[in-house]
Amino acid sequence: MPPRQRRLRGTRDSATAQAVILDAAIREFAAKGLAGARVDAIARAARVAKGLVFHHYGSKQALWVAALEHIYATLRSGQDAAAIEALGPVEGIRELARSTFRLFRDHPEIVALMNEENLHRASNVRASPRIRALYNPLFAGMQRLLDAGRRAGLFRDDVDVTALYIALSGLGYFYCANRWTLSAVFAGDLFREDRIATYESLIADMVVAHLQHGVKPRRPRRSARGTRSIAL
Amino acid sequence: MPPRQRRLRGTRDSATAQAVILDAAIREFAAKGLAGARVDAIARAARVAKGLVFHHYGSKQALWVAALEHIYATLRSGQDAAAIEALGPVEGIRELARSTFRLFRDHPEIVALMNEENLHRASNVRASPRIRALYNPLFAGMQRLLDAGRRAGLFRDDVDVTALYIALSGLGYFYCANRWTLSAVFAGDLFREDRIATYESLIADMVVAHLQHGVKPRRPRRSARGTRSIAL
Repeated sequence: MPPRQRRLRGTRDSATAQAVILDAAIREFAAKGLAGARVDAIARAARVAKGLVFHHYGSKQALWVAALEHIYATLRSGQDAAAIEALGPVEGIRELARSTFRLFRDHPEIVALMNEENLHRASNVRASPRIRALYNPLFAGMQRLLDAGRRAGLFRDDVDVTALYIALSGLGYFYCANRWTLSAVFAGDLFREDRIATYESLIADMVVAHLQHGVKPRRPRRSARGTRSIAL
Repeated sequence: MPPRQRRLRGTRDSATAQAVILDAAIREFAAKGLAGARVDAIARAARVAKGLVFHHYGSKQALWVAALEHIYATLRSGQDAAAIEALGPVEGIRELARSTFRLFRDHPEIVALMNEENLHRASNVRASPRIRALYNPLFAGMQRLLDAGRRAGLFRDDVDVTALYIALSGLGYFYCANRWTLSAVFAGDLFREDRIATYESLIADMVVAHLQHGVKPRRPRRSARGTRSIAL
């Protein structure tokens, strides 16, 4: 094999090894927490030497930070700010509520790692500028949707975007994080497809109902052409 | 001391010891989880002999079930179904949302133990008829509020009480459970009094806005005297 090809293959293998290790680490952290997780177990699950784990990540603590950055990136990549904005104010906010719920449902490791990081008072999230930076485009997009909704006379004008995002996330998070206790108390499987569908439409309705609460429907004005072209 | 008095004092001391042990156990479980908690540490924190812990509770597992029953009872005793019903449909539902949020804020051990029990797929909650029974009066009260609101023309008529309760709880739970990560991402202390107040009124508004969404305000009818007497 010529040297250049060998180098490329080496880079690719190295990236693959890192991804495999990170994947194994996220599963181990989700099952055992930060204190309970063992680098030995991660190496075994990833089928690599323990030395390679330290070579790529340095320490269990650094691997934890990488795992957190990964789950936040997964969450944010499922909340496509541009696609949500393109739907217009009402459908955009509805879709954000639905897709955030679906992400927590499909990625229990996000819930597990966030719960664990809260036990550590988020010291690692606080130290990661990458995680905080992930939210800027989403928040800017949400703010533009709220502004567009307000200008179109659809939404109230006193909504705090941070509080709204927390409420919208909480509606989905709790249902997934507490899936088992809720299913036990209410004697049924909360993850049955029809129940998921009922709840998904409830939370989308709830968030939009709040934004529209007390807003009087306005007759479309001929002079405000731009307003009517917004997709609802 | 006459025998009767001694017996009473013995009963009281025994009840006190049980309560002190349970309190220490809840703190140990909240900090360490079920697997990490040590009966030695619980006995030490309660200032009793380890043997007395086993005498009263039998095993660490049985102590875990007692701790779960206690936190569910704490949650439910803070959601006073009769008082909430007396407020009438709109204020009653608002108060339920607010008081549930305040309970999660004031009792982080409820959040910690519920998160932990979900890691165990709620096998202990499922096995406890006492926990499930706790919800019956609350749900009956909520259903009566929803019915009263519907009859008064205030609320929509397609609301599932279980889904509504989950949504209402989730709005409060997430804010408290994820206090640290949310504070880190949004660069501020979520538990600052003014932020708590803003969020508390947001979630009360959101739940009621959902119930009222699409319901046209109805003129009070002279013939429907009972309807007008409901406190709003």
